[in-house]
Amino acid sequence: MVTLKDIQSAHNRIAPFIHRTPILTNKSLNELTGAELYFKCENFQKAGSFKIRGATNTVELLSQEELDRGVATTSSGNHGAALSMAVSRRNGKTKVVMPHNTPKIKVKNVERNGGEVIWCDPDQHSREKVLKDLVDETASTVVHPYNDERIVMGQGTAAKELIEDQPDLDAIISPVSGGGLLSGTLISAKSLNPKIKVYGAEPLEADDTFLSLKKGEIVPNKTINTICDGLRAQIGTITFPIIQSHVQGVITLTENEIIESMKMIWERMKIIVEPSCSITLSAVLKSKELFLGKKVGLIISGGNVDLEKLPW
Amino acid sequence: MVTLKDIQSAHNRIAPFIHRTPILTNKSLNELTGAELYFKCENFQKAGSFKIRGATNTVELLSQEELDRGVATTSSGNHGAALSMAVSRRNGKTKVVMPHNTPKIKVKNVERNGGEVIWCDPDQHSREKVLKDLVDETASTVVHPYNDERIVMGQGTAAKELIEDQPDLDAIISPVSGGGLLSGTLISAKSLNPKIKVYGAEPLEADDTFLSLKKGEIVPNKTINTICDGLRAQIGTITFPIIQSHVQGVITLTENEIIESMKMIWERMKIIVEPSCSITLSAVLKSKELFLGKKVGLIISGGNVDLEKLPW
Repeated sequence: MVTLKDIQSAHNRIAPFIHRTPILTNKSLNELTGAELYFKCENFQKAGSFKIRGATNTVELLSQEELDRGVATTSSGNHGAALSMAVSRRNGKTKVVMPHNTPKIKVKNVERNGGEVIWCDPDQHSREKVLKDLVDETASTVVHPYNDERIVMGQGTAAKELIEDQPDLDAIISPVSGGGLLSGTLISAKSLNPKIKVYGAEPLEADDTFLSLKKGEIVPNKTINTICDGLRAQIGTITFPIIQSHVQGVITLTENEIIESMKMIWERMKIIVEPSCSITLSAVLKSKELFLGKKVGLIISGGNVDLEKLPW
Repeated sequence: MVTLKDIQSAHNRIAPFIHRTPILTNKSLNELTGAELYFKCENFQKAGSFKIRGATNTVELLSQEELDRGVATTSSGNHGAALSMAVSRRNGKTKVVMPHNTPKIKVKNVERNGGEVIWCDPDQHSREKVLKDLVDETASTVVHPYNDERIVMGQGTAAKELIEDQPDLDAIISPVSGGGLLSGTLISAKSLNPKIKVYGAEPLEADDTFLSLKKGEIVPNKTINTICDGLRAQIGTITFPIIQSHVQGVITLTENEIIESMKMIWERMKIIVEPSCSITLSAVLKSKELFLGKKVGLIISGGNVDLEKLPW
């Protein structure tokens, strides 16, 4: 079980290799929501997302022998780029299994950081099958994108920084997909301040975590037909129990709500964010009464958007 | 003649009403250009551009009687929004003469800040005629977007902040249109550090300042067929002599060069900037040898871009 102490060690381990990202505020969005919003801007992070935190923590913990076998993973893109960056720094090689409908910018981002892309179909089954075949063939060391305690420890450092810089938060909202970011956020937040309420934000079109919490056990995604290309993974067996124990709730959002909040952030804050994290603002707008008058931290997880395929 | 002392007074006057905007850096753009770039991010400024600096300085200096007559201006959008914001704070009314091809976001930005839009054709003659008729009819107090010493003093505060925060710059590049920003930048920069070289960046499609410097007298724009909707104005009689005395040179850029650098900033820095200021990065890329190994400040003048009409 990951603890705050693990996250603190991870933070010390990765600090030389990551940015301490800024926290931005925006008056007009505060007025619109009636809340005080604090945007933790991991879109400004190295390789364009929070994923470098977990990837760096894990790669720094690999033995030379594990590294020499080559590293492999499946990824919607951001984990693949981050892992490639972390592995390249240790002079290793990375193979990234990615769905063929991944935004071009994310593919380029993997390649620019030294990773090799292996294509799969855009469903969980194909992802796993292609990775398994690859590992059977090459004996590569797998670094899973979220279902790994070393990843959870790394991802938890984003919320740790957010709370260190803004200690009086009432709530934090994190996107949820495989659950690495949300579970790390929960451990950091609840350990540093047990009164903070932590919510997940999830697309209605890929609401496995919402349904799993309702049923009390992991339920697979029925569809992953969402614009949030970073939120199509299946909640993990390591991350789900942490979420189940600590999360205040998961708020589900429609595609339109997600796109609207994405445009709102671009227009008013002049920063580029993925739909996979503008969803946290959608959650505030949808559940206004929950956050009215509260200080709310939003984890802006990434900024890798294909500028030639915008959803408006 | 505007002096550094005037700019210092203007800064004291407007400081409570503006943001001290951050200076961002980007490793990959440094690698690409071979220079150390410092982006002064006025896209994060109130009302989305540096224009609030000159507008606030001028409006704060208006008498109650001048304000009561109503304020009028012509604007490509950003000055209009900024002026409306500054006038609204003093409970006055603003009328803004704008070309009918102004990006929608800039029209909305004027209206959101309490200004009333009066349409004109997209050429200098129509702008001036419509404004003159308006003033003849209403006796409004005109606040010109750039050809006014109070405006120059305000705009000069952006470079003053940039140099205070990054004192060892070798060069600064500012966009040039009517010349308010460039002339204010020149006075601040050359007074604070006479060794700094200051360049203007101008679209080839609206290169009146480049041509005027060459001829030694003001030459009108032959075309204003540029994507840089903030750089279509004509250099002013107050701003031109300042530029003529102090500028190191004006670098002209093609539309493609401007669009490419805009996309580059969006993709790599994850911030939204107008083509009217990405042009400063185009200038570094075009004249690489001038800036190689140098510390270069780029004035990122605004971020009001119509997200539904992107140029790629």
